[in-house]
Amino acid sequence: MKVSQRLREDADNIWKRIIEHPFVLELYSGSLPIDKFKFYILQDYNYLISAIKNISIISSRADSVEAMREIIEILWLESVSEFKGYEEFLEKLGYTIEDAVNVEPIPVNVSYISFLLSTSSLKSYAESITSLLPCFWSYAEIAEYHKDKLRKNGNSLYTEWAAVYLSEPYLNLVERMKKLVDNAGKEFSYKKLKKTFITASRYEYMYWDAIYNMHTWPV
Amino acid sequence: MKVSQRLREDADNIWKRIIEHPFVLELYSGSLPIDKFKFYILQDYNYLISAIKNISIISSRADSVEAMREIIEILWLESVSEFKGYEEFLEKLGYTIEDAVNVEPIPVNVSYISFLLSTSSLKSYAESITSLLPCFWSYAEIAEYHKDKLRKNGNSLYTEWAAVYLSEPYLNLVERMKKLVDNAGKEFSYKKLKKTFITASRYEYMYWDAIYNMHTWPV
Amino acid sequence: MKVSQRLREDADNIWKRIIEHPFVLELYSGSLPIDKFKFYILQDYNYLISAIKNISIISSRADSVEAMREIIEILWLESVSEFKGYEEFLEKLGYTIEDAVNVEPIPVNVSYISFLLSTSSLKSYAESITSLLPCFWSYAEIAEYHKDKLRKNGNSLYTEWAAVYLSEPYLNLVERMKKLVDNAGKEFSYKKLKKTFITASRYEYMYWDAIYNMHTWPV
Amino acid sequence: MKVSQRLREDADNIWKRIIEHPFVLELYSGSLPIDKFKFYILQDYNYLISAIKNISIISSRADSVEAMREIIEILWLESVSEFKGYEEFLEKLGYTIEDAVNVEPIPVNVSYISFLLSTSSLKSYAESITSLLPCFWSYAEIAEYHKDKLRKNGNSLYTEWAAVYLSEPYLNLVERMKKLVDNAGKEFSYKKLKKTFITASRYEYMYWDAIYNMHTWPV
Repeated sequence: MKVSQRLREDADNIWKRIIEHPFVLELYSGSLPIDKFKFYILQDYNYLISAIKNISIISSRADSVEAMREIIEILWLESVSEFKGYEEFLEKLGYTIEDAVNVEPIPVNVSYISFLLSTSSLKSYAESITSLLPCFWSYAEIAEYHKDKLRKNGNSLYTEWAAVYLSEPYLNLVERMKKLVDNAGKEFSYKKLKKTFITASRYEYMYWDAIYNMHTWPV
Repeated sequence: MKVSQRLREDADNIWKRIIEHPFVLELYSGSLPIDKFKFYILQDYNYLISAIKNISIISSRADSVEAMREIIEILWLESVSEFKGYEEFLEKLGYTIEDAVNVEPIPVNVSYISFLLSTSSLKSYAESITSLLPCFWSYAEIAEYHKDKLRKNGNSLYTEWAAVYLSEPYLNLVERMKKLVDNAGKEFSYKKLKKTFITASRYEYMYWDAIYNMHTWPV
Repeated sequence: MKVSQRLREDADNIWKRIIEHPFVLELYSGSLPIDKFKFYILQDYNYLISAIKNISIISSRADSVEAMREIIEILWLESVSEFKGYEEFLEKLGYTIEDAVNVEPIPVNVSYISFLLSTSSLKSYAESITSLLPCFWSYAEIAEYHKDKLRKNGNSLYTEWAAVYLSEPYLNLVERMKKLVDNAGKEFSYKKLKKTFITASRYEYMYWDAIYNMHTWPV
Repeated sequence: MKVSQRLREDADNIWKRIIEHPFVLELYSGSLPIDKFKFYILQDYNYLISAIKNISIISSRADSVEAMREIIEILWLESVSEFKGYEEFLEKLGYTIEDAVNVEPIPVNVSYISFLLSTSSLKSYAESITSLLPCFWSYAEIAEYHKDKLRKNGNSLYTEWAAVYLSEPYLNLVERMKKLVDNAGKEFSYKKLKKTFITASRYEYMYWDAIYNMHTWPV
């Protein structure tokens, strides 16, 4: 079995909870209160910047020239396309980029990002590329699982947002990342990769949950 | 006003909540259930290892030879004395070092450590040394604030644990760290240092709170 | 005066020696022995890989989102176009990519690359982006200075190689990098930037000189 | 065979050249011109600072808690004792610490240090700890090989300088570092460790040679 498939299976109980989280369900069925969606979009700016910073670090640690060039390609796509989509959504919601810049990241946002950045800065390339996978991959799996709800939901804003994750280019990106993990994991401790994948998956769940409940700093 | 003093004042509302947190109050007054204390001690192993790793990184980023040598001195003291104290406490509680090694860190533990490590790996030396200060300094302030309770509490385990933070060598260590922050902060954006100090202080609060409520991973 | 211009003036004596180095002169006038050119091209593979790795690190340290995205654009251009040009030249010279991979880097190659990578890993963003500039910029200045010789040299191989550095896209790239340095240098110690720029310029000179004299490891 | 022993044997031709280099021979036999010795001591300040910075980075990358604590012990010993010895020697030669601070490092100094720092920042822990070994170990081997010359040389300055490397604490330090390499190398590509060890050994040779010939920057 490929490493990515084994990781996915070992995180199955967490992923089920992600896929069925109220935020996700309501988003795809169209009933998510717009305030929660706006909260999500504004929080995501900070995450997006750090995700791109993180991919930069990972490309500098790649274990081969081919992997480095592949990650640079992903980095560039993210930097160009994700930002473009992001800015369009801000505009649709009546926000400017400054509004997003000025939002204070909530605890789970700072924590998840810190986990990703400290992994890429201090751990192996194999663990770093693995830490990225749950975010990219779970978005595709969520979209696939709920695509029928999406078709019927009549909420053009959410439909449009989610359509990206069903698109050919996005699915192709996920496949490329899985392949990078499969290659990096060939001669690397599976136990360590599993720990990384599980932790990132847990943060994905906690992220959706904190956004849904608008959990800000307690002090 | 010195940078450290200004940071302390700007975090005052958070520090009050730390100092009066039930875990802290019950620990110093002697009424903390032993299970909560054991939970704390076992969680702390992971934190301690990463704190030492973190100080190593910071010493490599110091802005002067004097600062580097001072941080190496702190690093060595921590590596020798903290470990010794830690191992003695494990023994008193009936644990081995392996018990501590095998404990899974709770979310706030992973998050706080990741925040510290990503700061020292990617941000400036000034922000990195500032991120360390709330942990060291708040332990001293907690001990000073509650020292009367400690004298009367009759719980020799907790009294002995807390005595370290009232000791001359520990207070000296805190003063040295404050001085490093004061020096590093002289020509550095106060706004950035404040953000770092506030975030680390918030994690301190959330750490105590999660330990008190034994908050493990939700999935 | 802009920081980049000031740096260029302060390194003028070194740059004159670079521009008039025998390797450069003979290359542009067409008289460079083909063996020296082949030696250069094979050595450059290692340098190119590390240069791209280096730009990845620098993009993760950028001081603003705009700078980060700009550096990612440069990184991607380098990763795509430089490699393509490089592979075409290897082929023209009768080499495969494997030939280049298997070449042992000479001392100045390891030294220059190590200087760049340790700067981007451990020093500030301002110093890191400045360390890149002499390589990119001096190639443009060399090409501009010797363009008349190039037109007349009759050596199609060298003419084609050098044409890149006179092209609009390349000159645009250099201007973008100068602007990044100008911005990063606005509130940064000029003395430190100068030290970095001078050191990188010196390595550029020593690189040409070692290649011309085919200086390999003495032991 | 232990990894350290295998590395030593594979670098034997380089180490023989180091041990018999004129600088080393004349230093131990007492005939080295004092100007060359002064040049060496002044250059060494920069190297020493960076060596300590480098050990800090390596301790943050250690592959076990035991290795981390062992490296911190070495780091502290270096930071305390090496500096003390260094400052005493400066004084004996009529220099202040400022004189050493203000000396410009020669090319091989910048290059060797950059190689060490980029290795510890970007490569594995195993390669990083291996990159340190040639410096520490070769000083011990040089002293052992030439100790008879030293006894008879009548040059109290050089005798005193060299005595450190024949001392029990120093030899103990070297043994500890060899053990760290042996442990780290158990499950790591020998080929990569060999490349690192050879490169560091070559820089050791080139360092002695550049110091002996007082090779400063060519431009």
